[in-house]
Amino acid sequence: MRIALGLEYDGAAFTGWQTQPDGRGVQDALERALPAIAAKPTPTICAGRTDTGVHALDQVVHFDTDAVRPLSAWVRGVNRFLPHSMAVRWAREVPDVFHARFDAVRRTYDYWILNDSVRSPLAHARAGWVFRPLDATAMHEAAARLVGRHDFTSFRSAECQATSPVRELRELSVARRGRLIRVRASANAFLHHMIRNVVGTLVDVGLGRHEPAWAAEVLEARDRSRAAPTFSPAGLYLVRVEYDPSFQLPAPSAAVPVWLDAYPDQDLRTDP
Amino acid sequence: MRIALGLEYDGAAFTGWQTQPDGRGVQDALERALPAIAAKPTPTICAGRTDTGVHALDQVVHFDTDAVRPLSAWVRGVNRFLPHSMAVRWAREVPDVFHARFDAVRRTYDYWILNDSVRSPLAHARAGWVFRPLDATAMHEAAARLVGRHDFTSFRSAECQATSPVRELRELSVARRGRLIRVRASANAFLHHMIRNVVGTLVDVGLGRHEPAWAAEVLEARDRSRAAPTFSPAGLYLVRVEYDPSFQLPAPSAAVPVWLDAYPDQDLRTDP
Repeated sequence: MRIALGLEYDGAAFTGWQTQPDGRGVQDALERALPAIAAKPTPTICAGRTDTGVHALDQVVHFDTDAVRPLSAWVRGVNRFLPHSMAVRWAREVPDVFHARFDAVRRTYDYWILNDSVRSPLAHARAGWVFRPLDATAMHEAAARLVGRHDFTSFRSAECQATSPVRELRELSVARRGRLIRVRASANAFLHHMIRNVVGTLVDVGLGRHEPAWAAEVLEARDRSRAAPTFSPAGLYLVRVEYDPSFQLPAPSAAVPVWLDAYPDQDLRTDP
Repeated sequence: MRIALGLEYDGAAFTGWQTQPDGRGVQDALERALPAIAAKPTPTICAGRTDTGVHALDQVVHFDTDAVRPLSAWVRGVNRFLPHSMAVRWAREVPDVFHARFDAVRRTYDYWILNDSVRSPLAHARAGWVFRPLDATAMHEAAARLVGRHDFTSFRSAECQATSPVRELRELSVARRGRLIRVRASANAFLHHMIRNVVGTLVDVGLGRHEPAWAAEVLEARDRSRAAPTFSPAGLYLVRVEYDPSFQLPAPSAAVPVWLDAYPDQDLRTDP
């Protein structure tokens, strides 16, 4: 049978999703833990392959197993064999046709920037940091120029292996909350480093180095050298991956960083 | 001259405030960094000595120096020599009579509990975890029985060196926000492990093991063996230390974990 899991992890502890020779990938930790419950090697497939340092609140993974276990064994049982930096949050049995990567119809990431003159140790590796004041309104205006179906060559890393640079950016919004600025990006799929390259460009606008309209110029140039450098991975969170409702996966609105529960500000917790 | 500093740190990286032979105390890290700016060894004195794993948002420290520097050198200059897990948030010149420990008139701590059936990697070492449902209303009722000036022997660790077990608990409140429960404790001063012992006792009430009135019985017994075990340090934050306004230290309301800025819920950000 096929099982889907939702994973949360602290990206600072890993070299990103993908299995690595040194065994420090998220996939490595998961595939070391699963045999304790599945009783045999259990390869996994994910949606939203993350880079080193990028966090996940609800990354969806699937695997096949002939082990018949209660769903709680795939959650609390597996968690006993995972490091503190990673946990299975939920498990569901899914049809054999379900594919975590190919069936994902929408991926949403949040990037949190700490905009404060002094760094915050408790935000270290949990948020990007910009010590000069950012104009979040200008950043939001620049973001609006990137929404839609475009060739994102200017925001694509040299190592990107995607066959097409065209993606449909369905949401790109910027909102300030006190010392924090949240950039939310939602698309069918993203290119390699695309969000961090977009955030770097929005930060340049926020610092006043460019007008908001510059974002459209960068996009139209289709030239990576025109955009700003890749921003730090520290503030990037894979927030949710969406599928056809017929698969009956848990409501993605449950996937918020736990501290958001303390502050029931609905517009930050749900899709617009 | 005498300088006061406000410190933020991630307690998971330290063995508590006090200097230790292995050099892993917060004081050790600070006193390794200060000579880079002060040009000589610079002993420090703090209010609110923390234990291993306990965090601080605004711990107040003072030291004497004959180095004449702009205040920014005591903030950004010192921060260049501190680890990521620690930062000076502000600096002020204070009168020579100011004493960080003896002049502190009120100390406030928050304890955050993650109350969720599954653990959260992003809350690891940042919140205590209780996987069975807690009744926060019952916990708040129990907390109310401990407010006031009392002999807190039942909540004092065997290693406590205070000459008197009497303390005035000015606030002890419990509030639920989603999956998080916040216990706020405010007093002139606390005994060793007092808050963690109180939280353990409140959690026992929240789990239904005892009625709220049991908290008063434990207090009146003046017997450490009657209270619950010491709770984990992971969720404990030294939030603020207050002084006579004549010292003109920064307003303590600025000391909130940075992520609270995202959610302008005033009742969690300011004193009642």
